[in-house]
Amino acid sequence: LTQLVYFITGVAGSGKTALGKLLSEHWNIPFADADDFHPPENIAKMRAGIPLTDDDRAGWLHALNAYAIEQLQSGSIVIACSALKNAYRTRLCASIPPHQVRWIHLRGDYDLIRQRMEARGGHFMPAALLQSQFDIYEQPTQGWVFDVKNSLDQIFQRIKIIMQPTFGVIGLGVMGRNLARNLARHQVPLSLYNRFVAGQEERVAERAVAEFPELATAKPFEDLKAFVASLERPRKVFLMVNAGAPVDEVLEQLWPLLEPGDIVMDGGNSHYEDTRRRQEQSLQKGIHFLGVGVSGGESGALNGPAIMVGGDTDAYAQVAPFLEQIAARDAGTGLCAALVGPQGAGHFVKMTHNGIEYAEMQLLAEVYSVLRWEMGHTPDQVADILSEWMQDGQRSYLLEITINILRRREGNGWLLDVISDKAAHKGTGSWASIAASELGVPVTMMTDALFARFVAALQPYRHELSAIYPPWERPVELSISTLKYAYAFARVINHHQGFMMIQAASKHYGWQISMPEVARIWTNGCIIRSDLMLESVHNLTEYGDLLRSTSVQAQIKRDYPALQDTVAHLSYSRRAYPCLMGALTAFNGLTTHTSSAHLIQAQRDYFGAHLYERTDDQSGQKYHTNWE
Amino acid sequence: LTQLVYFITGVAGSGKTALGKLLSEHWNIPFADADDFHPPENIAKMRAGIPLTDDDRAGWLHALNAYAIEQLQSGSIVIACSALKNAYRTRLCASIPPHQVRWIHLRGDYDLIRQRMEARGGHFMPAALLQSQFDIYEQPTQGWVFDVKNSLDQIFQRIKIIMQPTFGVIGLGVMGRNLARNLARHQVPLSLYNRFVAGQEERVAERAVAEFPELATAKPFEDLKAFVASLERPRKVFLMVNAGAPVDEVLEQLWPLLEPGDIVMDGGNSHYEDTRRRQEQSLQKGIHFLGVGVSGGESGALNGPAIMVGGDTDAYAQVAPFLEQIAARDAGTGLCAALVGPQGAGHFVKMTHNGIEYAEMQLLAEVYSVLRWEMGHTPDQVADILSEWMQDGQRSYLLEITINILRRREGNGWLLDVISDKAAHKGTGSWASIAASELGVPVTMMTDALFARFVAALQPYRHELSAIYPPWERPVELSISTLKYAYAFARVINHHQGFMMIQAASKHYGWQISMPEVARIWTNGCIIRSDLMLESVHNLTEYGDLLRSTSVQAQIKRDYPALQDTVAHLSYSRRAYPCLMGALTAFNGLTTHTSSAHLIQAQRDYFGAHLYERTDDQSGQKYHTNWE
Repeated sequence: LTQLVYFITGVAGSGKTALGKLLSEHWNIPFADADDFHPPENIAKMRAGIPLTDDDRAGWLHALNAYAIEQLQSGSIVIACSALKNAYRTRLCASIPPHQVRWIHLRGDYDLIRQRMEARGGHFMPAALLQSQFDIYEQPTQGWVFDVKNSLDQIFQRIKIIMQPTFGVIGLGVMGRNLARNLARHQVPLSLYNRFVAGQEERVAERAVAEFPELATAKPFEDLKAFVASLERPRKVFLMVNAGAPVDEVLEQLWPLLEPGDIVMDGGNSHYEDTRRRQEQSLQKGIHFLGVGVSGGESGALNGPAIMVGGDTDAYAQVAPFLEQIAARDAGTGLCAALVGPQGAGHFVKMTHNGIEYAEMQLLAEVYSVLRWEMGHTPDQVADILSEWMQDGQRSYLLEITINILRRREGNGWLLDVISDKAAHKGTGSWASIAASELGVPVTMMTDALFARFVAALQPYRHELSAIYPPWERPVELSISTLKYAYAFARVINHHQGFMMIQAASKHYGWQISMPEVARIWTNGCIIRSDLMLESVHNLTEYGDLLRSTSVQAQIKRDYPALQDTVAHLSYSRRAYPCLMGALTAFNGLTTHTSSAHLIQAQRDYFGAHLYERTDDQSGQKYHTNWE
Repeated sequence: LTQLVYFITGVAGSGKTALGKLLSEHWNIPFADADDFHPPENIAKMRAGIPLTDDDRAGWLHALNAYAIEQLQSGSIVIACSALKNAYRTRLCASIPPHQVRWIHLRGDYDLIRQRMEARGGHFMPAALLQSQFDIYEQPTQGWVFDVKNSLDQIFQRIKIIMQPTFGVIGLGVMGRNLARNLARHQVPLSLYNRFVAGQEERVAERAVAEFPELATAKPFEDLKAFVASLERPRKVFLMVNAGAPVDEVLEQLWPLLEPGDIVMDGGNSHYEDTRRRQEQSLQKGIHFLGVGVSGGESGALNGPAIMVGGDTDAYAQVAPFLEQIAARDAGTGLCAALVGPQGAGHFVKMTHNGIEYAEMQLLAEVYSVLRWEMGHTPDQVADILSEWMQDGQRSYLLEITINILRRREGNGWLLDVISDKAAHKGTGSWASIAASELGVPVTMMTDALFARFVAALQPYRHELSAIYPPWERPVELSISTLKYAYAFARVINHHQGFMMIQAASKHYGWQISMPEVARIWTNGCIIRSDLMLESVHNLTEYGDLLRSTSVQAQIKRDYPALQDTVAHLSYSRRAYPCLMGALTAFNGLTTHTSSAHLIQAQRDYFGAHLYERTDDQSGQKYHTNWE
C-alpha cells in the first residue's frame, strides 16, 4: 500500500491536534504537531501577540516538508498544521507525489473557535491572534473540508468513512476508469475491480493503478471476493459495466458477498425497468441499489459529469458526499448531481437526456447539410456561421464541438469528408423512442433522429437506391438568419418534448420528478448543456411547461415564420430534414384545437366497433354507429 | 344436442352407401339409402339405361325430405343420396333449419368411378348411365367435399375429425363470437367456452348458442374442464381472449387439461415475443401453439378474415382445413390464410399490418384535412373527390369506408362533426413502432401516425395551447390532382416501409417469411386490402422490393414533384401533416447517397470515443480522432 501523509489544517483552536491524535491511534501511524517545529523565535513572537510573517513561516514550512518526506520512507503519517494560505499548503507538500497527499481542512465560525480557545487556555497562542489568522485564511482548493460545529467524534467517523476504502468501482472501461480517477482526485480511497478474461482483460485494475498517478493509492483486484472484503461497511460499490446481462451477471456474483446496508450503484446506461427490477431483487437481500445516470462522455466522467440518481433517499444520502464531489457544478451554487426520484427515475432521466441529445445532434447535422449542400458553404464557412450563432443565443456544448469538427482538416481537405455516414446508435436512443411509444407521449423529434440514424446505417441500400432515383442540385434560397431562427425553434420543441416525456413517466410511475431540477442538473457536465437549458430552468420553475412561458411564446412567435419558410424551401431538396420538418409538425399538432383525428375515430368504429366519444357529450360516454 | 341430418351425395359408385354405413355405426344413428326410396318405375327406367328426368325425381326427393323431417323428431340420421344438382339438394333439405343439415359430398374422376362400378357389379344402375350423371353434376355451394381417390377409411377419419367437435373457441367477445359463427357456417362442429364473471360475463356461451342459429349445434360451456373434455383429440382450441395477461391466465388453466398433440391457436393481437415464449412453454408439455394473426375487424371475422399464422408446420397442417374454410379468398384461386413462418412470425406480420393500417388511416385523415380545411370543400364534396380517386387507382377498403363516413349525416350536419378527435390506439400500433426501434428499421410513417394519435389524445392540452398559439386561415393553393399524386406516393412509401420491417424481422429471427405471400394474404379480408396491395404482390414477386420495381419507379417519378409541391404548400398551414411530410423525408433519406450523418459520427467520436469508419477504408476498421 502506498504511504500517505495526512495534513490536518485549520486556524488555532479548530481542533487539529485532537483529531490528528485520534487518526494516529486509529490507523496506528505517527502523529506530528507542526507547532513543535516552530523555532523558539516564532514561539516568542506568538506569545507576545505579534503575528508571524511569511518569512517567519518559511523555514518552519520547509522543516515540516522535509520531515514529511523523511517519514514517508517508512510509512504514513498525520501532521496537524495551520497552513492558512494555499502558498503554505503548496510548500508543505512540495516534492511529494500528489497521490500520496491527503488534505483534511477544519473550519468554523470565528465566534465558536474563539469561545473554544478561551475555554481551553494553556496554549501558547493568545486568542487575540485568532483574528489575524482568519484574516489571511484562504479557501482550500483541494481536499475535504469539515465544519467544527460538529463534534470531534462526528468528524472522526466521517473521515474514517471517507479515508478508508468504503468505495469500490467495478469495471474499468473508459467510463469506469475515468470516474475512478475523478473520485481519486477528490481523495476518495478506492478499491478497483475488473474481471479477468484470459487474453482480453488481464490485470486491468493493476494496470490502471500503475498508469494513472491519482490511482496509485487505490487497491486493485481481480478477485471479486477480495475486492468486497477490502471495503469497510457499509460498502459503496459503483458498477461501471455494460448495460444489460453483464449487470445482472455481476449482481449475481456480488449479492452473496455483500451484507445488509451495503449500497450498489449502477452507473451504466441501464434500462429503467431493469433498474427497478434490480432494486427489488437487491432489497430482498437488504442491499440498496441506486440507478445512476452519468452523462458527459469520457471527459465528463473524468472532470465532472452530470449525475441523475434514482432510488431510495437513505441510500442516496450515504453516497451523496462522494457523488457530489465528482459532479460538475451548475451555473449557480449547486452541483449537477441529485436524486431525481425513486426506482428507475435516474436512468429514465438519463435515457431522455440521450433522446434529446439525438435530436440536437440531428438538428445540427441538418443545419450543416443546409448550409453546406443546399447553400454551398465550405465546412470552414459553416463553422464561421455557427460561431456567430454561438454568440447569438445558441451556445451549447454540441454546437461548440460541431464547430471544432467542421474546422478539423486532413491533408488538403476536411477530416469530416473521409468519415463514413454509416451512423451508429446504442441502447438509450432507441429506448427513449420505445418509452415514448409505451407511455403514449408524442416525443417525435428524438424518434425522427433515431430513424435518421437507421437510414444512415442502411448505407449499401441507400447507394443502390440513389442510383435508381438520382439526386439533383437545386440551390435553396434561404437566408442564414431564417435558418438560425428555424433551428432555435426546433430546439425549443425538442426540449419541450423531452420534458413532456419525463413528466409523463413521472406521472405514470408516481416518481414526482421535479422538471426544473432535472433541467438544472443538465446545465453543466452533460452533453446537452446549453444556454437554452439554463433558460429552461427558469421557464420550468416559473411556468411548469416550456410552451407556457411568456419568453418562449415570444421566441416562437418570432421564429415560427422562419421555420415555415425553411420547411417550404427544403421541400424541394432531395435530402431529408426529418427534425426540422418534424419540429413544425410537432408544434402544429400540439396547437391544433380540432384535428382530423375524428375521421380516424370514425374509421376505427367502422371496421372494429372501437367506439368514439362525441363532442356534445363531455361525460366520457362512448358511442357506436352502425356504418354499413 | 341438436339433431342433425347428414346428406352424403355423389354420383353412382362414389361410395356413398359404404361411407353412410360407417358413419351410422360410428355415431349409432340410422342410415337410409335414397335408392330405396325410388318408386318401381324409376328403378325400371334405370335398369333399362334410360336417364331419369327431373319429373321422375320430384316425388322421390319429396319422399326423402319427408322422411328426414320425420326422423329428426327422434334423432339424427345419415342419408346417402346422389343429389347431383343444387336444385335437388335444396329440395332434400326443404323446411329443415339449416343448422340441422350437414352436407358431405363425394367426388372423383370419371375414369376412377367407372372402374370401381365395373369392378363391383350387382347394382341396378348400369355403368353406361354414369356419364349422364357427370353431365348434369353441379358443384355444391356448401358443405364438405371429399375426393374418392382417398380410401374409405381416410375419408371416414377426416369426417370424424371434421364432424366431431375437435374444435373449441375460448372467449366470445365480438371477434371470438364472429369467428365461431364463421366456423359454424362452414359446418365445423364447435364447443364454445366463455369464462364466468359474476354480474359481467354469465352464460355467455349459452346465450351465443341461443342467439345465433348457426351456433345452435355448438356446445356451450362455462366450465373449462368440461369444455376440454367435450373435444375429440387432437383438440384444436382457438383462444380469442384479450392479448397480454389474459392469454397467459387461460393457458395456465388449459395446459393441465390438454394432452400431448393438442393444438392451441391464439387468435388475438398478442405480442410476437409473447407468442414465441408461449410456444416454448407449450412445447415442453407436448402441446402445439400457433400465433394466429386475424385481420378484418368484426365483419372480416364473420365473413372471411385474412389469417397469418406463425408456428410449426405439423400443427398448421392439422388446422389448415378449418382456417382455410373461414378465410377470405384472394384475387386469384388462393385463400387469405397461410403459415407465414415459425414462432411469432404470424403475430409479427399481423402487427405490421396494423402499423401500415395506422399510416393509411392517418394519410386519409391528412388528405381529408387538406381537402376540407385547407381547400374548403364540404365532407360530401370530399367524398365525391375521393370517389373519383377510387376509380383512379387508389381503390382500397379504407378509402371506401372513409367515403361512407364522409357522407353520413346527422341532423342538418355530418355525423363526423360531432365525433371527438380524441383518437385512441391499442397495443399493436405502438408495438410496431417499438419493433422498428428495436430492429433498427426506419419505419417512420407508422410511427408518425402513432404519434399523431398520441397528439390527438392530448385534447385538453391542445385546447390550452391553441389558445396561446392561435391558428389562422390561409387557403392552400394546391390542385386536387397534385394532392392525389402525393397521396399515392405516400402510400407506396408506407407499404414499402411495412415490408422492410417484415424483411428485417425475418432476417433477424431467421423466419424466412415470403414477402409476396404476405402481400397476397393481404389482398383480401383484411383492413389494408387495396389495389396497391394487389400490385405489390406482383412487384414483390418480380423485384423483391417495391422501390426496385420499374412500375413503382415510373409512378414515383410521376408523383414526386406533386409530393414536393404538397409539402411546400402545407408548410404554411397551421395544421400537422406528419405522414405526407414524413413520406417525403423517408424517400429522400433512403435515396441519399452521402448524408450529413458523418457529422453525427464525428460528434459521437468527439464526446464519447465511439469511433467511426472512413470512406477510404472499406474493411470495417474503426477510427478514433483526438478532437480536443
